[in-house]
Amino acid sequence: MSEISNLFPVWYHLTEEQKQLLNDKVYIKDVKKGTVLHRGDEDCDGLYIVRTGQLRAYIISDQGKELTLYRLFEMDICLFSASCILSNIQFEIIVEAEKDTSILIIPVRVYQKLMETNNAVANYTNHLMASRFTDVMWLIDQVLFKSMATRLASFLLYESNIEESDELNITHEKIANHIGTAREVVTRMLKYFQQEDLIKMSRGSIIITDRKKLENV
Amino acid sequence: MSEISNLFPVWYHLTEEQKQLLNDKVYIKDVKKGTVLHRGDEDCDGLYIVRTGQLRAYIISDQGKELTLYRLFEMDICLFSASCILSNIQFEIIVEAEKDTSILIIPVRVYQKLMETNNAVANYTNHLMASRFTDVMWLIDQVLFKSMATRLASFLLYESNIEESDELNITHEKIANHIGTAREVVTRMLKYFQQEDLIKMSRGSIIITDRKKLENV
Repeated sequence: MSEISNLFPVWYHLTEEQKQLLNDKVYIKDVKKGTVLHRGDEDCDGLYIVRTGQLRAYIISDQGKELTLYRLFEMDICLFSASCILSNIQFEIIVEAEKDTSILIIPVRVYQKLMETNNAVANYTNHLMASRFTDVMWLIDQVLFKSMATRLASFLLYESNIEESDELNITHEKIANHIGTAREVVTRMLKYFQQEDLIKMSRGSIIITDRKKLENV
Repeated sequence: MSEISNLFPVWYHLTEEQKQLLNDKVYIKDVKKGTVLHRGDEDCDGLYIVRTGQLRAYIISDQGKELTLYRLFEMDICLFSASCILSNIQFEIIVEAEKDTSILIIPVRVYQKLMETNNAVANYTNHLMASRFTDVMWLIDQVLFKSMATRLASFLLYESNIEESDELNITHEKIANHIGTAREVVTRMLKYFQQEDLIKMSRGSIIITDRKKLENV
């Protein structure tokens, strides 16, 4: 499996023995859209590397309200699926496949061993965590300092970039779960956006009609 | 300076040479209450270790609204004062002394060298970051899923624990900056708490009169 050498950036800093260990232990998992791959500390398979598809990492409140933390695409690495490695991580993230997804899994024990014996891997883990930390700090800024309208507009634009389409097939409920609000709030705001000619709603889809204006909400 | 061996937990994993380097380069800085020690990426002295006193790490919005991320006490280590080490950290944190404070500083170049050459230091950095990440995730939960009243009540109780007193000498403005809201909101809510006999306000101070009730807000 030479794929791992492309997907795992510190491959070339590993010793021959460490490369062999990885080659022997890494495995592939294919899941259908909607599959929950990781839930808090219930499971801790290992580090996920996305081969194809799309993952969503989110949190859920005691009352069942969701908030998307970040998305992972091809070649992205999901550190928190191996959160049990990081003894100080005491929060629960759920990782779910947003599309049919194929991942490489580096088992926890293997990754842990690499971190302990290879300085490049330890520092790369730092690098990964810093990058997720930055995502989450951006989110705090959004949640705390931006209006819900601005956040909804940003979400629609981001989603349209991911899908490479102006037409989004997504329910109001799903949007609410991404941005951490209630469905009614999303519906009300979308109606307002439509009235202002930023979007057009039809059965089950939202079409962005004025990208410029939406960027300035 | 044998102090560093007590304050820096991975000391005993360092080589003699690395210990010597630290001993030679680490230095003390004493600052008055209110001093801003670190602001975003304007400065990047190094890793701070609190000897005595208290630091506050916070963010500030474009509109000047503040939010406290976490506090650092004796023996705590401030990683983000050395955020330039972590290339993927792209957010700005301000670190300010909340009391007269004395810190040890491990200069950036020294810490960077240790991270690159000592696996225990690299993994310890992971550990520190994971712990701050947990603080920030707790905060997201608060900001997003808890009411402002609950957050204010938690803040008063936390503050009373730090100060080891039921009487808090803090302005409404300062409280607002900690919990990311407007002064008027804090004043209104404190009045409500007083009316419900949870606290008593007098000139410049807030006295917690019913801890149990405050915990259940």
